[in-house]
Amino acid sequence: MLETESTNGATPTRPFKFLKIMDYLSEYKRIRKQSLTICEPLTTEDYVVQPADVASPPKWHLAHITWFFETFILRKFYPNYRPFDEQYIYLFNSYYESVGEHFFRPNRGHLSRPTVSEIKEYRKYVDSYMQELLAKANLSDELKNLIEIGLNHEQQHQELLFMDIKYILGHNPTFPAYSDESLLKSLTSTDQILNIPEGVYEIGYNGDGFCYDNERNRHKVYLNSYQIHSKPVTNGEYLKFVEANGYQSFQYWHSDGWTWVNENHITAPEYWFKKDGKWMEYTLNGLHPLNLDAPVCHVSYYEAYAFVEWAEKRLPTEAEWEIAAEQLDRGHCWDWTESSYLPYPGYEKPAGAIGEYNAKFMVSQMVLRGGCVATPEGHARDTYRNFFYPNNRWQFSGIRLCEK
Amino acid sequence: MLETESTNGATPTRPFKFLKIMDYLSEYKRIRKQSLTICEPLTTEDYVVQPADVASPPKWHLAHITWFFETFILRKFYPNYRPFDEQYIYLFNSYYESVGEHFFRPNRGHLSRPTVSEIKEYRKYVDSYMQELLAKANLSDELKNLIEIGLNHEQQHQELLFMDIKYILGHNPTFPAYSDESLLKSLTSTDQILNIPEGVYEIGYNGDGFCYDNERNRHKVYLNSYQIHSKPVTNGEYLKFVEANGYQSFQYWHSDGWTWVNENHITAPEYWFKKDGKWMEYTLNGLHPLNLDAPVCHVSYYEAYAFVEWAEKRLPTEAEWEIAAEQLDRGHCWDWTESSYLPYPGYEKPAGAIGEYNAKFMVSQMVLRGGCVATPEGHARDTYRNFFYPNNRWQFSGIRLCEK
Amino acid sequence: MLETESTNGATPTRPFKFLKIMDYLSEYKRIRKQSLTICEPLTTEDYVVQPADVASPPKWHLAHITWFFETFILRKFYPNYRPFDEQYIYLFNSYYESVGEHFFRPNRGHLSRPTVSEIKEYRKYVDSYMQELLAKANLSDELKNLIEIGLNHEQQHQELLFMDIKYILGHNPTFPAYSDESLLKSLTSTDQILNIPEGVYEIGYNGDGFCYDNERNRHKVYLNSYQIHSKPVTNGEYLKFVEANGYQSFQYWHSDGWTWVNENHITAPEYWFKKDGKWMEYTLNGLHPLNLDAPVCHVSYYEAYAFVEWAEKRLPTEAEWEIAAEQLDRGHCWDWTESSYLPYPGYEKPAGAIGEYNAKFMVSQMVLRGGCVATPEGHARDTYRNFFYPNNRWQFSGIRLCEK
Amino acid sequence: MLETESTNGATPTRPFKFLKIMDYLSEYKRIRKQSLTICEPLTTEDYVVQPADVASPPKWHLAHITWFFETFILRKFYPNYRPFDEQYIYLFNSYYESVGEHFFRPNRGHLSRPTVSEIKEYRKYVDSYMQELLAKANLSDELKNLIEIGLNHEQQHQELLFMDIKYILGHNPTFPAYSDESLLKSLTSTDQILNIPEGVYEIGYNGDGFCYDNERNRHKVYLNSYQIHSKPVTNGEYLKFVEANGYQSFQYWHSDGWTWVNENHITAPEYWFKKDGKWMEYTLNGLHPLNLDAPVCHVSYYEAYAFVEWAEKRLPTEAEWEIAAEQLDRGHCWDWTESSYLPYPGYEKPAGAIGEYNAKFMVSQMVLRGGCVATPEGHARDTYRNFFYPNNRWQFSGIRLCEK
Repeated sequence: MLETESTNGATPTRPFKFLKIMDYLSEYKRIRKQSLTICEPLTTEDYVVQPADVASPPKWHLAHITWFFETFILRKFYPNYRPFDEQYIYLFNSYYESVGEHFFRPNRGHLSRPTVSEIKEYRKYVDSYMQELLAKANLSDELKNLIEIGLNHEQQHQELLFMDIKYILGHNPTFPAYSDESLLKSLTSTDQILNIPEGVYEIGYNGDGFCYDNERNRHKVYLNSYQIHSKPVTNGEYLKFVEANGYQSFQYWHSDGWTWVNENHITAPEYWFKKDGKWMEYTLNGLHPLNLDAPVCHVSYYEAYAFVEWAEKRLPTEAEWEIAAEQLDRGHCWDWTESSYLPYPGYEKPAGAIGEYNAKFMVSQMVLRGGCVATPEGHARDTYRNFFYPNNRWQFSGIRLCEK
Repeated sequence: MLETESTNGATPTRPFKFLKIMDYLSEYKRIRKQSLTICEPLTTEDYVVQPADVASPPKWHLAHITWFFETFILRKFYPNYRPFDEQYIYLFNSYYESVGEHFFRPNRGHLSRPTVSEIKEYRKYVDSYMQELLAKANLSDELKNLIEIGLNHEQQHQELLFMDIKYILGHNPTFPAYSDESLLKSLTSTDQILNIPEGVYEIGYNGDGFCYDNERNRHKVYLNSYQIHSKPVTNGEYLKFVEANGYQSFQYWHSDGWTWVNENHITAPEYWFKKDGKWMEYTLNGLHPLNLDAPVCHVSYYEAYAFVEWAEKRLPTEAEWEIAAEQLDRGHCWDWTESSYLPYPGYEKPAGAIGEYNAKFMVSQMVLRGGCVATPEGHARDTYRNFFYPNNRWQFSGIRLCEK
Repeated sequence: MLETESTNGATPTRPFKFLKIMDYLSEYKRIRKQSLTICEPLTTEDYVVQPADVASPPKWHLAHITWFFETFILRKFYPNYRPFDEQYIYLFNSYYESVGEHFFRPNRGHLSRPTVSEIKEYRKYVDSYMQELLAKANLSDELKNLIEIGLNHEQQHQELLFMDIKYILGHNPTFPAYSDESLLKSLTSTDQILNIPEGVYEIGYNGDGFCYDNERNRHKVYLNSYQIHSKPVTNGEYLKFVEANGYQSFQYWHSDGWTWVNENHITAPEYWFKKDGKWMEYTLNGLHPLNLDAPVCHVSYYEAYAFVEWAEKRLPTEAEWEIAAEQLDRGHCWDWTESSYLPYPGYEKPAGAIGEYNAKFMVSQMVLRGGCVATPEGHARDTYRNFFYPNNRWQFSGIRLCEK
Repeated sequence: MLETESTNGATPTRPFKFLKIMDYLSEYKRIRKQSLTICEPLTTEDYVVQPADVASPPKWHLAHITWFFETFILRKFYPNYRPFDEQYIYLFNSYYESVGEHFFRPNRGHLSRPTVSEIKEYRKYVDSYMQELLAKANLSDELKNLIEIGLNHEQQHQELLFMDIKYILGHNPTFPAYSDESLLKSLTSTDQILNIPEGVYEIGYNGDGFCYDNERNRHKVYLNSYQIHSKPVTNGEYLKFVEANGYQSFQYWHSDGWTWVNENHITAPEYWFKKDGKWMEYTLNGLHPLNLDAPVCHVSYYEAYAFVEWAEKRLPTEAEWEIAAEQLDRGHCWDWTESSYLPYPGYEKPAGAIGEYNAKFMVSQMVLRGGCVATPEGHARDTYRNFFYPNNRWQFSGIRLCEK
């Protein structure tokens, strides 16, 4: 409840806030390497396919995050830089209209070339120039800012890689495992109801580190008193909804959600399969009996809403979530909130192509909070705003309850 | 900034709040008659067609608002009521899943029968029973509540009738006029920027009259100081955006909006036509040269957003709008807000079929405020929340600006 | 087996062959009047709707057949003719690209204006000019030819009027009757198998009367000996196929037909409805129990093929049908043949817009032969080639068998 | 003109006619090896993708043709055969309803697993059992027949492999070459017009070798005298049509073709690209300037028809083609004919799953004749009937002219 003027009145001096990383070069190396590590268990074939419009081929991700450094940094800051391949500007642009035309997203899985090894060559090529650049002293603030965005961007695609790899393997009739090690972030605490008193609170980022433009301005909100659960909903709890014919009962659903359920014949979360009367779940470890104690994951906003309607609870708003963040048992999945993805008071879209990063998606999407098992260490924050359409569920998304 | 407990803590004792109307019978007669008056200028053919999925045939509206009284009042409260036609339950149900199956909405324009005169017979039949019921003393609170909902429901359809009639006539290549009288609500004031100080405010309904469930609970919000324009955007101002190639410039648009513009070849607001290099506008008075001083109307949320981006302004939130409401020059059109249509704190969905009235639409839609020229006198309130999808624009929707 | 040179070698001297009608004027009046007579039982609303893309509103037909005379005759042959309404050129053009743009076919049912009475005025207007023209002596051959095409065209639309009226009323949940009089063309004979010996035969038109371009040239075909049934398949016979799970058994269907059945959930001919375990059929007399002795009607080519596969028979080719024509018991419906609609040897497309009448449809459609109850008296011939897509079934189409 | 009885009256004693191959084992080895040879130039990634619904991934073809031997031969004729993988029955069934469910065709490119090397293992596994079986003396007629079908089936997929590989590489923005060697079958002769006299002719297969069921019965047809060109249409000739605005001129096109051109923005044959004002063509040798002397290839039936309309010629019927076959300069591509793919007189569908091979496709497709550069040596015959939908053009299809 402090700093009203400075918080809300200040014009940000640069689009994204950044952290003074001690050593940009080693951070660059660490994060770039991580993308390849994630792909190590894949066969060449796994890198190529795109079984849904939203899920890109892993090789596309590897190229696109490299394209980002090449396009926004090397072409501008490395004198006389010669691009690896002029066609890659078009092929690996995701959606930046400012950069020119981009290859039609649903057709990414139509491309056998460039091959995986050509893309790995591309990465090496760009890395060598980037490392030369980063080894220099006296990086400008503009450059530092772009590097941080580039690295955070790569980390976002690392999470997308996990989502898309899971989609590729989990929609293959042979259900291959990605890994033998358990990737479940388990919950050990007992569920508690946290009571938060009414009052004026502040949300949004106001620290010294990196944050996205959409986390600012930090601003005041008035919250009524509310009760939020410390633990997310489990598979076991969600199963009761399924078995109570929740997917066949219109009264729990939004009108759009009910249409979605019926048109797509949805009867359970993504990756749940009923085989011989028994519920199985595909995880990155393969197809196994449903773990009732694990947090429910891969539900759409429509499903999250229908579940809370059935349970006579409600979802938190993003402000409610953020204020309670430190007390929550943060689990395997992002938490759907009841908040639409909209600009904060005083929001300013960054200039140029970077302005396309967030602002143009601020319609018809819902906010998710907290991070998930696939989010790179150190990438997310309590103020971090993730967002998806209400029918999306290939992301690691789960349910957090508030009492009514 | 008072009454926090009573406002936010109270559980509403009935789904919709109602006004003690002095004379239910004469109010019923007055409002029912108005629906027929609206349709008087139509030819029989105009009652039948449905040139877009969203726009229902006028005869369907006339039947549906009658069905509402028959289904929710006469069948329950009139002893031994004999329905006019059993098939009408199915034919004139709009979307109430609780009431059973409904006829597929986009096919309403496929039905030549029942004819217009049969539907007028249906109205007379239901009216005679309703009037008999309303003439009685000692109506129960439950019944009063349903009557008020039914009348408000009919008023909402009166606005829809104007929207759909305009769509039917305005998409006919012969552009017939609905009326010779001007229906433009003109604006005479000069635009002013209103300065609203920061602070905790209250929004939502808390009066003694009728309100919809979605206007409650009245609750506190924290607003930063803001500047809102007293007058809405005019055709002349919007035309500058059109002529500055606003519809060809991706940078002003949401990503979804840009797709919408391109897939639908949108180049101007609905009902604007360029003939021989001159801009014409279809209004209910026919096709005429664009009136530059009139408020811009029939823009989608996507267009409203693109316009404010271009103009370096922003849209108000619904709370900002409501707090400033009394000072605004309310014009011809609803004002798009930057707020998604979501439940207020403490919102309770009414029980039964009436619970389907609002709650199930609370996803992916944007709030509009204020009312329009087609809104029946006395129907809307400052707390009234209208809502449409971001691509809809057959409603009378315009643009109100806030300074950034 | 005569006249080979003259038949196949001759270049037709005009696009359609015509009959020297004794009195063009009275023939014009008679045929024009018949179109209005067909529409007499309709309500105004019935004239307006279009419940399927293929089925045009009756008022559209009434206008279009008038447009044909205005466009191809009055505008060219009546000196200084002033069109009734310049916009009608666009509105009532069906598909003639040569004449300019045409209104999008599936949107015909979106138009409330021009009204039915305006269209009747249009008819009167054009009729008065046409009658003046026809009253003159010494009509040129070109003009006579166009008049005959216009009248045959109007007769084709008279059949379409019956098809579309049946579709409009038969897809209305109230199933109104068009008429109280029976419209069934009954079959009284006993089925016989006709044996036709192998040999060289001639098919196609070579008479002195009117024929369409697609019936020429008359040419030789070699036929193996074949056995064709004198009577078409009845509802009772087709019902056995339905009850033998014919619609659930892939082995009887073309691959495309099987997809059609499954995507559209087809389980019986158009207008068959199972109510309380009993088969009903909608005819122009309303909804009645299925008449087992009537010829099966409103089946698609896919269904006709599946039926003959199940029955271990086959459909006749159009040549086989034509050679046997005089011996067949011609019934209520057109007979599907196993022949694709393709040009005959020596076929010449007429010049100009009339060339669009037939030639451009000669792909992907199947030929039907014989005429039906809705075909105007004297319109069809043994050489007449009707054609529809294999999935169409709103026309009066039935099944004629050949032995394998 | 002889043997009427024996030709038309005989019931075939088995579904497909077969050749007494001297050594089934070596023929099996030779043909099976050829499929792998075709794929040798591919990268692993090229085996996986499916850039159009009609074009299957090469690894799918390799598995499916193996599945055919496993399903129709080993499971029935090899005692106690253990399938390589039970799931492959479902995964690699193309369309045989009799064999059970099949994986949705447009999703074949969604499957990264089984991998290319797993599929090669599958081939080896099946080959070892097949070779053991074929090494035996005294193969039954039924078995011999199935082996011949299996080998012919594999050869058809070898042509499909070329078509699909060309589609995959030719729709990649990098246009990789498949081979450095020219694959063009050039034409050296001068075009001549062949005059064929009218009369009764016989078409269809009646030899001692293998043929498909659709080539029988051999039967008589009556042909008028006709003039057919010895050489197919060249790129240079077709280019004149393109440059005469053929793709923008409705009058040359079927109505369906005109819709196809406009909806798909077709302006030239598949694989033609205009770069910097110059026409280029993608062939299996990469992207090169259009070779004006090469036969035009990869045109749809719609395009072939529009071209002949423009050129004031016509396409041959399949009977006309077959009678002239020996005198034709057979080129790089199949020739589109004006004949629909329909059963010959006396056609009998084979019993069981093999009956699904041809009969169920006999609707809405057009016949092509002659073979192409991608057809395996010795696979096609003068009586061979290939067939595609009128909009298909990824096959090697060209144009042969008849004089009008």
